[in-house]
Amino acid sequence: MSNTNSAEQGQATPSHPKPISLPPNTSSAKFHEFLRRASAIVGDENVVVVAGDDQLQQQDYMDRSKVHDMFHILEKKAFLHSCTVAPKDVPGVQNIMRLANEMEIPVWPFSMGRNLGYGGAAPRVPGSIGLDMGKNMNKVLKVDADSAYALVEPGVSFFDLHQYLVDHDLRDKVWADCPDLGGGSVIGNTMERGIGYTPYGDHWMMHCGLEVVLPDGSLVRTGMGALPNPKADKNAPPHEQEPNECWQLFNYGFGPHHDGIFSQSNMGIVTKMGVWLMPNPGGSQTYMITFPRDDDLNRIVEIMRPLRVSMVLQNVPKLDNILVSAAMEGTRSSYTNSNELLTDADLDAIAEKLGLGRWNFYGCIYGPPEVREVLWKVIKSAFSQIPGAKFYFPEDRPHDKALQTRKNTFVGIPSITELDWVSWLPNGGHLFFAPIAKLTGDDAEAQYELTRRRSEEFGFDFLGAFLVGVREIHHIVCILFDREDPEMRTRAHELIKLLIQEAADRGWGEYRAHLALMDQVAGTYNFNDSAHMKLSEKIKDALDPKGILSPGKNGVWPTTYKQYNKQI
Amino acid sequence: MSNTNSAEQGQATPSHPKPISLPPNTSSAKFHEFLRRASAIVGDENVVVVAGDDQLQQQDYMDRSKVHDMFHILEKKAFLHSCTVAPKDVPGVQNIMRLANEMEIPVWPFSMGRNLGYGGAAPRVPGSIGLDMGKNMNKVLKVDADSAYALVEPGVSFFDLHQYLVDHDLRDKVWADCPDLGGGSVIGNTMERGIGYTPYGDHWMMHCGLEVVLPDGSLVRTGMGALPNPKADKNAPPHEQEPNECWQLFNYGFGPHHDGIFSQSNMGIVTKMGVWLMPNPGGSQTYMITFPRDDDLNRIVEIMRPLRVSMVLQNVPKLDNILVSAAMEGTRSSYTNSNELLTDADLDAIAEKLGLGRWNFYGCIYGPPEVREVLWKVIKSAFSQIPGAKFYFPEDRPHDKALQTRKNTFVGIPSITELDWVSWLPNGGHLFFAPIAKLTGDDAEAQYELTRRRSEEFGFDFLGAFLVGVREIHHIVCILFDREDPEMRTRAHELIKLLIQEAADRGWGEYRAHLALMDQVAGTYNFNDSAHMKLSEKIKDALDPKGILSPGKNGVWPTTYKQYNKQI
Repeated sequence: MSNTNSAEQGQATPSHPKPISLPPNTSSAKFHEFLRRASAIVGDENVVVVAGDDQLQQQDYMDRSKVHDMFHILEKKAFLHSCTVAPKDVPGVQNIMRLANEMEIPVWPFSMGRNLGYGGAAPRVPGSIGLDMGKNMNKVLKVDADSAYALVEPGVSFFDLHQYLVDHDLRDKVWADCPDLGGGSVIGNTMERGIGYTPYGDHWMMHCGLEVVLPDGSLVRTGMGALPNPKADKNAPPHEQEPNECWQLFNYGFGPHHDGIFSQSNMGIVTKMGVWLMPNPGGSQTYMITFPRDDDLNRIVEIMRPLRVSMVLQNVPKLDNILVSAAMEGTRSSYTNSNELLTDADLDAIAEKLGLGRWNFYGCIYGPPEVREVLWKVIKSAFSQIPGAKFYFPEDRPHDKALQTRKNTFVGIPSITELDWVSWLPNGGHLFFAPIAKLTGDDAEAQYELTRRRSEEFGFDFLGAFLVGVREIHHIVCILFDREDPEMRTRAHELIKLLIQEAADRGWGEYRAHLALMDQVAGTYNFNDSAHMKLSEKIKDALDPKGILSPGKNGVWPTTYKQYNKQI
Repeated sequence: MSNTNSAEQGQATPSHPKPISLPPNTSSAKFHEFLRRASAIVGDENVVVVAGDDQLQQQDYMDRSKVHDMFHILEKKAFLHSCTVAPKDVPGVQNIMRLANEMEIPVWPFSMGRNLGYGGAAPRVPGSIGLDMGKNMNKVLKVDADSAYALVEPGVSFFDLHQYLVDHDLRDKVWADCPDLGGGSVIGNTMERGIGYTPYGDHWMMHCGLEVVLPDGSLVRTGMGALPNPKADKNAPPHEQEPNECWQLFNYGFGPHHDGIFSQSNMGIVTKMGVWLMPNPGGSQTYMITFPRDDDLNRIVEIMRPLRVSMVLQNVPKLDNILVSAAMEGTRSSYTNSNELLTDADLDAIAEKLGLGRWNFYGCIYGPPEVREVLWKVIKSAFSQIPGAKFYFPEDRPHDKALQTRKNTFVGIPSITELDWVSWLPNGGHLFFAPIAKLTGDDAEAQYELTRRRSEEFGFDFLGAFLVGVREIHHIVCILFDREDPEMRTRAHELIKLLIQEAADRGWGEYRAHLALMDQVAGTYNFNDSAHMKLSEKIKDALDPKGILSPGKNGVWPTTYKQYNKQI
């Protein structure tokens, strides 16, 4: 798809095709001028105009050259880059940002184009320049197994980092936490504050040290990275200078700690990040507990809370509603020929058939055998209070896809098996509705009641999982739809808009949102006349006066976009 | 000391005494105008001019009305407020900030005036208005023992929070982590990124949710606090509105996470903060390990690293050089009549006399007996590799002040006993030199070698402790001096300036610094032409265009202070 027919570097490339979307306030001539100058910075082969429908086909999940949202909830063309530009190195990123500032053209960076369920690689403002950070900048720069950290570039996926540990025989010393799907970027997931399932599952908490290109093209290292390493070659370009030895050891450095303003935001572009690796705990035991009744939820969560808060549950456990597990084992049509919603009786039957409960709890115990034994005794005895609870180890159910996958995820071995549930419907696409809940039975139950009821009213089977942080739950509701069915997409869109509003009415907020929902979700965080958003906007305008970096990301619009039509 | 002789609220108070320092660019008339208007906001009794020498006496550590740096390294009057103003509530803080903006007078907030060794309550710019946040705003607003958190105001000390748990019979459920000294503010210590010694010792990591008054007087709640609680009374003033139920449960909320820019900085004033409490682990065992030889250091640290990284050492252990323990047991003159520096032979003799080692390691194991047993076996066997290592529990040494104090600190019971070492010299004052070190034997040894050698060259006995984070060491060197001896103070000042420079030359940076050293330390974090500082300055100018909030804090000077003479 790249343009290999162009002339020498820096020359005009009149042969660039017409993009589907142009950047706002940008003529075709100006856009081609941008392409010409961008090519001079990154090379022709790293500039791709998004022009043809072939570029918008559903792609393999592992394809590294995304240009759009694979699971588009609006029309395929609603959120599209005009082109993608893949810098070869940090100065390339800096120079593209300088060019974008000069030409006042918006840039939307993505690491690898995953962010499935939240918009993939696509930009909030159609026609933005997609800055493909991962294509060429994809190295594991360092792993220190003694101090248990890695330093990575944006294109390093969870698969890549894990493979690095395998290839260097380091798994007996350290593991890398991974989320459900291993194909995404470590940096991308962390900056979006995604989570995984080992004790290192809070990825943002476990990052240490950022290198960031600011919107004006300047380069910052945060934390201890701001202190030069005396061994560094002062004549080398800054991004190549050997970093301070404590950069990945101590997060905070001296003075204001800026890292947070770069997460879920549009204040800078991360080019390097430190990530803490989990020391091999000397043993682990994955387990599953099935609970037979739909209304066991309240008690399950009440039993979980003290165990999780006190770290008897050492990792981020996952409590799946039956259809999450069922959808991994087969498509909807493998369970029913009916187009009617599945009833409670149907769900009971599916659970029965699969040998599962209506709720299925996946956890893991870490440590040497003596420690595991103590913890398992406590866990088993606590959950045994629920009548009909059944306890399994992976060896008890060798053909259970969910359990066998969890067994790997819990020890940092990534996969993409979890995404199998997206094929529940034909041409499967999905949206995530992801509110934070208080870790109490009543709150979990209330969120389940609301989200299931509304899902069914809108004609969707309910798929949901509770991921248990230390003091809260990430409740992840998967809204599955047929991408080729516009009416169904519209219904899904209407459903999630209603859920966001009804959740806010109850004091529940989302931790993350799809492109199409960012403004609405941001609008619910409106305490004291939206003081938090005003703070974000003030910082945004200070760091990016021309508003060219990811305008609208998570609802943060620069002043320059005040007149922009944000209608979705 | 308050001015109770003034007229009615809001009227002129001509009887205010002349302050020792006036704010910069502020006439006496303008200052008195400020006093008058500030009194109208907070009440006369909450406005105190710093005028008399009696206000500059050494105060009891528990005195809650500090106006200066008790351990002044420069002249007593070098860093002085013109007055202190103690708001009664959040609107009081907002209105004082609006007044300060209007009159362009700098404000320096402090919670309780501790921050011992780093400047106490004193401001960087002499003549600043000391905003005494703790005097009137000192409530534990909420403790949720099930979800294990507290919500506190700036005047809540570690003693207060602990006492609250005791008074409400909650210690069997939750503990509050505390630093060495319990008299300081929970908010103050956390915002300065101080540390404690339980598994919750990284106070910044364990905070959750801030309410902040920005320099312009607006009020922000971060994280989930930005989402209104539907039960809140919308007609109440914002600061009184019942917060979102997840505010103290989930740190990040939605969009950019701003908390970090308020830590160690001058971007806002925290009025409420959530702090995670540690669930009672079901048992604990404090222990001490003594190591006989000065040169055991390298091996001790090498043994510690894998144990700490893998969390076999579950908390923040402390490795004290002999004189730290010795100074808690007696003054210098109780050990020697000589003015000469203590030699290695002297130090060996002191260790012998006290039944301690040259290095003394204090740790704690948490959990039920079976878990503790496993961990203790691993720890004891690891450190037994060092010849002469001895293992003690507190019951073995009932009169050992350090060990008995640690036994409390490790389970969240605060004290001020640790400060006894400040009386090593008469009129004892101290400065902390606090570089971050890589958690390796070589790095610890190199820092010890440098800091001890330079301390002794400048005529100071070496007192130092290594506090072991997860992947790094906070190395805390205590420079003890006689406050009444100007020559000695100058020597201490020269010593620390040299240490900061020599540390930076080796790639070591301080995590925190005294007022007099902030500019120098900030100047060492100068990667890529001080890009990190430029970022701080850009945000500072955006949030505080008049530069009235804590100018110069940690080296961050607003543009308005470009012409200000910063010479120390």
